[in-house]
Amino acid sequence: MSVADPAAPTAGAAGVRALFNPTSIALVGATDKSGWSLNTHLNLKDFPGEVYLVNPRSETVHGRPAYPSLSALPGPVDLVYVMTPTRAVIEVMREGAGLGIRSYVVLTAGFGETGAEGRALEDEIAAYAAEHGLTVLGPNGNGYINAAAGVTPYGLPIPAGLPRGSVGVVLQSGALASAVMNLAMARSVGVSLLTSMGNETQVTVTDVLGHLVDDPETKVIALFLESIRRPDEFSAIARRALAAGKPIVALKIGRSSLAKSTAQAHTGALVGDDRVIDAAFAQLGVVRVRSLEDLIVTAGLLAQTGPLPGRRIGVVTPSGGASEIIADRAEDEGLDLPPWAPATVSGLSEILPDFATVQNPLDVTGYVVVDRTLLGRALDVATADPGIDMVMLLSELPRIEPPDPEPVVKMFTANAERINGSPKPIVVISNAMTDVSAFGREVARRSGFPYVAGGIEHGMTALGAALRWSETYRRARAAVPAQRGTPVRVPGLEGSPRGVWAEHRAAGLLSAAGLPVVPSALVETSEEAAAAADRLGYPVVVKAAAEGLAHKSDIGGVRLGLGSAAEVRDAGADVLAAMGKAEVDGGGLLVQPQRSGGVELLVGVVRDASWGLTLAVGLGGVWVEVLKDTALRLLPVDAAEVRRALDELRGVDLLRGARGSRAADLDAVADVVARIGALAAGLGDRLESLEINPLLVRGSEVEALDTLIIWRD
Amino acid sequence: MSVADPAAPTAGAAGVRALFNPTSIALVGATDKSGWSLNTHLNLKDFPGEVYLVNPRSETVHGRPAYPSLSALPGPVDLVYVMTPTRAVIEVMREGAGLGIRSYVVLTAGFGETGAEGRALEDEIAAYAAEHGLTVLGPNGNGYINAAAGVTPYGLPIPAGLPRGSVGVVLQSGALASAVMNLAMARSVGVSLLTSMGNETQVTVTDVLGHLVDDPETKVIALFLESIRRPDEFSAIARRALAAGKPIVALKIGRSSLAKSTAQAHTGALVGDDRVIDAAFAQLGVVRVRSLEDLIVTAGLLAQTGPLPGRRIGVVTPSGGASEIIADRAEDEGLDLPPWAPATVSGLSEILPDFATVQNPLDVTGYVVVDRTLLGRALDVATADPGIDMVMLLSELPRIEPPDPEPVVKMFTANAERINGSPKPIVVISNAMTDVSAFGREVARRSGFPYVAGGIEHGMTALGAALRWSETYRRARAAVPAQRGTPVRVPGLEGSPRGVWAEHRAAGLLSAAGLPVVPSALVETSEEAAAAADRLGYPVVVKAAAEGLAHKSDIGGVRLGLGSAAEVRDAGADVLAAMGKAEVDGGGLLVQPQRSGGVELLVGVVRDASWGLTLAVGLGGVWVEVLKDTALRLLPVDAAEVRRALDELRGVDLLRGARGSRAADLDAVADVVARIGALAAGLGDRLESLEINPLLVRGSEVEALDTLIIWRD
Repeated sequence: MSVADPAAPTAGAAGVRALFNPTSIALVGATDKSGWSLNTHLNLKDFPGEVYLVNPRSETVHGRPAYPSLSALPGPVDLVYVMTPTRAVIEVMREGAGLGIRSYVVLTAGFGETGAEGRALEDEIAAYAAEHGLTVLGPNGNGYINAAAGVTPYGLPIPAGLPRGSVGVVLQSGALASAVMNLAMARSVGVSLLTSMGNETQVTVTDVLGHLVDDPETKVIALFLESIRRPDEFSAIARRALAAGKPIVALKIGRSSLAKSTAQAHTGALVGDDRVIDAAFAQLGVVRVRSLEDLIVTAGLLAQTGPLPGRRIGVVTPSGGASEIIADRAEDEGLDLPPWAPATVSGLSEILPDFATVQNPLDVTGYVVVDRTLLGRALDVATADPGIDMVMLLSELPRIEPPDPEPVVKMFTANAERINGSPKPIVVISNAMTDVSAFGREVARRSGFPYVAGGIEHGMTALGAALRWSETYRRARAAVPAQRGTPVRVPGLEGSPRGVWAEHRAAGLLSAAGLPVVPSALVETSEEAAAAADRLGYPVVVKAAAEGLAHKSDIGGVRLGLGSAAEVRDAGADVLAAMGKAEVDGGGLLVQPQRSGGVELLVGVVRDASWGLTLAVGLGGVWVEVLKDTALRLLPVDAAEVRRALDELRGVDLLRGARGSRAADLDAVADVVARIGALAAGLGDRLESLEINPLLVRGSEVEALDTLIIWRD
Repeated sequence: MSVADPAAPTAGAAGVRALFNPTSIALVGATDKSGWSLNTHLNLKDFPGEVYLVNPRSETVHGRPAYPSLSALPGPVDLVYVMTPTRAVIEVMREGAGLGIRSYVVLTAGFGETGAEGRALEDEIAAYAAEHGLTVLGPNGNGYINAAAGVTPYGLPIPAGLPRGSVGVVLQSGALASAVMNLAMARSVGVSLLTSMGNETQVTVTDVLGHLVDDPETKVIALFLESIRRPDEFSAIARRALAAGKPIVALKIGRSSLAKSTAQAHTGALVGDDRVIDAAFAQLGVVRVRSLEDLIVTAGLLAQTGPLPGRRIGVVTPSGGASEIIADRAEDEGLDLPPWAPATVSGLSEILPDFATVQNPLDVTGYVVVDRTLLGRALDVATADPGIDMVMLLSELPRIEPPDPEPVVKMFTANAERINGSPKPIVVISNAMTDVSAFGREVARRSGFPYVAGGIEHGMTALGAALRWSETYRRARAAVPAQRGTPVRVPGLEGSPRGVWAEHRAAGLLSAAGLPVVPSALVETSEEAAAAADRLGYPVVVKAAAEGLAHKSDIGGVRLGLGSAAEVRDAGADVLAAMGKAEVDGGGLLVQPQRSGGVELLVGVVRDASWGLTLAVGLGGVWVEVLKDTALRLLPVDAAEVRRALDELRGVDLLRGARGSRAADLDAVADVVARIGALAAGLGDRLESLEINPLLVRGSEVEALDTLIIWRD
């Protein structure tokens, strides 16, 4: 996927930036009776600007003077945090707008989430905000924590010591914010801005993503998603993030919801919503994770490393058992652990104890307890290995402060200098996921020791994800834009194509676009069919040809392996009779040479309700019908992306010549499939689906044997 | 797998019990210069018995009087902890044995792990121990922590506050012990006995497992395994643990090592070492996990719950976002989240706020912040639902101590009483894996709140594993012993069968055992073949029949689809000529009716080098050759176990009638496959492999079409 021509920032970018950077704040609806109010007020105690409390019925709130209204405030305000009853929210906005206040965070609930009545109130807010150029976060959201700027209008307790840093967090579930912050603290992952989205009446996830892509304090974005409301906007922002080298790490729930089949063609059933999201994320460089732990650990790792150079990893550990767990997990993640180069082997042999085994992963042995320099010296030798792109070091920050911490700090400082000065990236992962202790944080701070990913399990998941993201990032930088589809001029397309196009018409479209299609003759009688078969050469196939007939086989409309004119005449008569019986209008016969051998693919393009045209490619027969073995891509795709899709198929070995089959020219296949995608993308908004089943592959010969196109009405 | 007739405890059970329960300990080789010595001495400071220090060159060690030798000690000793130089270890044992001391923990390294010389010293120790009835843990191991009894001869620091409890931990990697203990602390998982095995010269993992199965303090065993040296002993102990209802949770590394093909037959290549371990663990009820986190979280959960009643789970949470993560993870783990019963729906509707949605998983909403009784009351209603077997509650222990902790303690006490008094199990899982804080531990202790599994990700993994273990446990309790194979009397078996048995002879063995085999005629000439075909009915198959010929197709020895006597004569002549050309001895022809339709299975029994006879079953063709879609089981198996194996196949839908195929009678298939397993098990130690490929299934008809048997020489 190309990152050229990224979408422009969304319209409200300046408003969103202002929302997150106020210089004075009014808490409207502040009251001693509300925990939310208490929390928000407490959270803002270090806010450098003014914080005003507004309550029409109390002169004092939280031990401070309160004002009856926004108009009564003694100074200007540029953010209103709204905690009033539901019906009063619009009044607050009206008053604020009149005073020129543009930014609102609405904690108040009782809107769209409660039913139609609340929905109407929420619509009123949205309309008012749009009309008056206001920026509204929420309602029914806890607010945000701009940790970088120390601006924290947020209604729940913020854990003491939440580290500031470069991970932007965007949450569609406010209830998870505490868990996410506790995890970030436990893992020493610093946060730039955390936003609890609420109902997204106006400011949406994509608005906040856009802000974070532009935010110099943010290097990585961690995202909890329940639904993607505007895939087009999301795609545009994701492309912009990828172009900027800012990874988006996303926990998108709803994997288990059953996919809705939206298309009539076979492909439709193969494209589950969630699999399309997987495909979209992979193409867009959005790292999809499956747990809160992976969300934070992966974001933390990418914030430390940025793009990583390659998959060849040298592993240095002080533990044999851990080395073996790492080897298992590296294979899961598709990482390479090449053998050390000869010079590395001899270098390591010189410094390691005699009983150590020099291999990758390297166990420098428990002698680290005796010789505190051993691990660092081994790291130097390993990092210099010419056959690796990067090093993974297994190391723990200390948990308990010893009576004299200085030797510990000294050791970590020495290794930190090694790591931070290394020409190759060195990623540090600990044994298991236990919290970084206060002493561990202190040692890291004093020594400059880098981020330690929390445990082999999640650390290796993060490393694998980071490397896949890095590859997508590099491809995006190198790519020329994929064809978005060129409008195609074909007889029949000038009007408004509709319904199901019969095979001969669909195949004609493919041919006109220069795609390889099996030769065929469209005839009206069985006698003409026999004559056509004589010309084409035996054996042949005779098929029913009629507009609107999507499933020829269902009416007995396909006859295979016809070896003589007589057989063709009989079969033709049978098919015509079957079409008559099925009351198919205006039917004819399609005669084609019968192909044998090769591997059959299914190539389908279907319009996903959310994400638009989606390409599915898979092996035919049981592979799609029983195994659902297809790879999906959003259009547009280039041939290289199709090639990667083919490589994902479980049955790809059949294309590579398994079981004595002729090895397919996968580049030739990818080229044809990419051109099919480009054709489909050029067919306009009325295309519902285009399916070629089978696309026959014999070596470098690729040929569409049957094609079906369905148009939207 | 049956648990009847469990193996007797291993020979040294009494010795192992004594090893872990000494009343006085001598540290030999104690010295102020060694960190190990300092640690061990410090670890034993609360040991209730005598601890003596032995050092021939110092009168004072660790600030206490030291003695020059074991003989010089002022009182009796029943455990010696050895930290001397390598060559002195045997002398210490000799002196101790002379004094009647039976138990030894050897920290000293430099033995087998360093090479041949060390191996010889280790063998000397082993021989001496065996001869004199000593029990030796190690060498090259850190010792053990008997937390239940307060006996801790252990050479590395033990984290302060390591909780006592009912999880026994056995580690083949000493370097991981600290990570495991820190995790156990962080997760509040109490340990009964932790053992760092070292070289396992004498006391092995299975010895310690046997001890823990008998240990009343231990409810669950957590195991880190690098290799299983004696699968037979391991199986016996695992069966005993399952019968006792004590789950073994194992992190077995080496998933990524390439499997060794040990068998000549096709099946051999399908049976990777690690997949056999998976199969063995599943049958034995050993819970295999893939991370240290899962090891501890799963062991902790099973220690809390014991066997769980069923997979129908009601989920109660205070968070919508978490509910959705749980729904995704529940599907991954194969758990059922049924809709609430009508009475539950109305009960929940009464107590929940209006805007709450009553579904499973249940989000009782953020109103828990306002009404602290809400979660507990919802839990009562949910637990009473008649359609669920158990409840999962999402709840966190508090992290930070508030100024007045009593309301928190009160709330947790109320919920603890609910949970602990519930007629259905209630499993508690937190949002994310952060350490249980000191205050959280205190609240749990004071309130009696149960174990909280660490985070949705690992908690749901643990819950899935616990439910699968519970099912295996119940099956084991209900099962009658599976047939271990009855010795079979067949012509040719009386002698010493060897090499490759041709199809006709192998098929004869199957027939003699009452298994369904395609009819066939063994003839010598092509003319006789034609006559046989006339009798059998056309079409037929003609195959080369000769001893030692494993792969008939390779020499052109299989001719299919012969429709007339003339075709059979020609084909027969061709096959005989091909056999002559390939210099096959004493060849004949095998004539069989050709079957059509149905689904082809491969059923293979192969002797795994470690685990013995292993059954592989899968669909034929691409399913095994490209997808490696087979299910494995150790023999013996009963038909129910085979049925479960069939259900594991990715292609099982083909057997169930996908793509218009006739649905197979899976019970009939399982019965035949189980009988094939029983036959193989009855063929004795010389059987290398028995493979039926294909076993044709047409509805309830099951028939072996080709059979190959290979014997060991």
